[in-house]
Amino acid sequence: MSNALPATTLASDIAAGLAKVEALFESQLSSDFPAVNDLCAHVERYRGKMLRPTLVLVTGLAFTDDGAPLADEHAIVAATVEMIHMATLVHDDVLDEAAVRRRGETVNFLRGNETAVILGDYLISNAFHLCSRAGDPALNLRLGEVTNTLCEGELIQLSRRHDLALDQETYLEIIRRKTAVLVGASCELGARLAGASAADTAAMRGFGERLGVAFQIQDDLLDLLGDEATVGKSIGRDLEKGKLTLPMILHIRSTEGAARAAALDAIESKDGARLREALFASGAIDAARAFAVGIVDEAKRALPATRRTGSRELLLELANRVVARDA
Amino acid sequence: MSNALPATTLASDIAAGLAKVEALFESQLSSDFPAVNDLCAHVERYRGKMLRPTLVLVTGLAFTDDGAPLADEHAIVAATVEMIHMATLVHDDVLDEAAVRRRGETVNFLRGNETAVILGDYLISNAFHLCSRAGDPALNLRLGEVTNTLCEGELIQLSRRHDLALDQETYLEIIRRKTAVLVGASCELGARLAGASAADTAAMRGFGERLGVAFQIQDDLLDLLGDEATVGKSIGRDLEKGKLTLPMILHIRSTEGAARAAALDAIESKDGARLREALFASGAIDAARAFAVGIVDEAKRALPATRRTGSRELLLELANRVVARDA
Repeated sequence: MSNALPATTLASDIAAGLAKVEALFESQLSSDFPAVNDLCAHVERYRGKMLRPTLVLVTGLAFTDDGAPLADEHAIVAATVEMIHMATLVHDDVLDEAAVRRRGETVNFLRGNETAVILGDYLISNAFHLCSRAGDPALNLRLGEVTNTLCEGELIQLSRRHDLALDQETYLEIIRRKTAVLVGASCELGARLAGASAADTAAMRGFGERLGVAFQIQDDLLDLLGDEATVGKSIGRDLEKGKLTLPMILHIRSTEGAARAAALDAIESKDGARLREALFASGAIDAARAFAVGIVDEAKRALPATRRTGSRELLLELANRVVARDA
Repeated sequence: MSNALPATTLASDIAAGLAKVEALFESQLSSDFPAVNDLCAHVERYRGKMLRPTLVLVTGLAFTDDGAPLADEHAIVAATVEMIHMATLVHDDVLDEAAVRRRGETVNFLRGNETAVILGDYLISNAFHLCSRAGDPALNLRLGEVTNTLCEGELIQLSRRHDLALDQETYLEIIRRKTAVLVGASCELGARLAGASAADTAAMRGFGERLGVAFQIQDDLLDLLGDEATVGKSIGRDLEKGKLTLPMILHIRSTEGAARAAALDAIESKDGARLREALFASGAIDAARAFAVGIVDEAKRALPATRRTGSRELLLELANRVVARDA
């Protein structure tokens, strides 16, 4: 099949795929009411890294012969996972009372929580509708399972806010559910739709889930340490909202006496500067970073053999980028 | 086929169907985390009239031979539409800052808006997942379209809050989208899954949409006129939230001078007693009631011929109940 088609590079195929994703995204969200379109146009500004759709496309290409195109389903699934992600951003900003996202004002800040709640619903609904357009019930079933798990992660996290006894195991289970499962499904479905074997599909899911866990740990580090101008969104929200993240958990577990008391007190009084000082001093920041890098290394080691030239290198690079980013 | 099966009455078939719906509802929402199960148990208390699942089942039976059972898909769709409805109730209560629902406290009142937002998401996600279990992509596509429209209705309504120029046509379009389309789809899918003709399926959709419009007008009348103890949920929310409903629109359109000014002023100052007085005096309350009854009459006249003994009478009775209720 590949010799019947013009040779293309991996980069141009990904660019073509992402262009399809953007077109699908826009056509899916076009309404006959201007009030709805205005809101959707605002949300499209949130599209940034496009990590999840990129992973769908790269994983799909990784299990495709050189020069062979991706199926249309890849673009549909890629746009769907991005739309699910966007819905979670809109609702997360309501939960976090965040005012800034991707260097712009959040929907809740601009239009109020009520509009942000329904706009998030509209995005979830459109994500499922878009996915249904592929006509493959297995896709709907899998993505429905993924979003169930994602919401469970958020519910568990909400139930553990302000809980200083939150342990590492539960924290990891929360971020696995709320973040990693969707990233894992992006890789899994990319591979499955390209006809990868069951073993390779499962391996890619594991690769993606590890990337997702590392991504969330890095996100939590940026929330703790970054500044809004660089990160481009409201930061310090975890402390404000009583969400314990990995460096805090590692610090509480590994220190005692004054060092431990100082961090607990800083968390309870929402004193970011004092908390950072304590966590740097105990080595908890470094330990959290090392933990994330270790998970990325695990992901890279577990990457199965791929077919497409350059795809392995690109997947390894995407994995590295997850922890080497300041935005 | 019907003579190979034991004869059953319509009522016993509906009861059996509703029992299946409840079982599906509970099994779909069971999680491995107690915090999630507690919330879902609370939401299950909201199940009240079960109008939408009942319509799926009755419409399905209406196009089935006497004694023949319904397909499993009917129970799946019936549980799905109820779960979608439940999700909208949870998010509506956030939007309306309502404290009481089905004589109990709302999720937002008990656990805060944040938990209510994610719980609503969890219900939407589970509704789509449950629907996917039927393995029929057309169902997912249709219900995705319905929830897109539902969210659009809510977004348009939000964009027109506190807008005293809202006209009847736009009001009807808002309630068609936010309420009627799901009721219409309940009848449509009930008929389609029973193998009804395209014409009968479309007619049942029209029947359901008319019921949905009348239902929402009655709901809005109860919000304006009812008392919380009878209605069983927070009332007066429309006035509080700047939502113009049919009697207000009819009054504004049909009066002038002092009568018109009194109502406009009562709306702006959120004075329910004065508003009711003005709307009763102008006949706008009676006109809104008559409008809803007229739509129910249209629905009844457009009801196609059904096969199952007693199903026509039951559909007519359900139609009457939509406007003859005080809760």
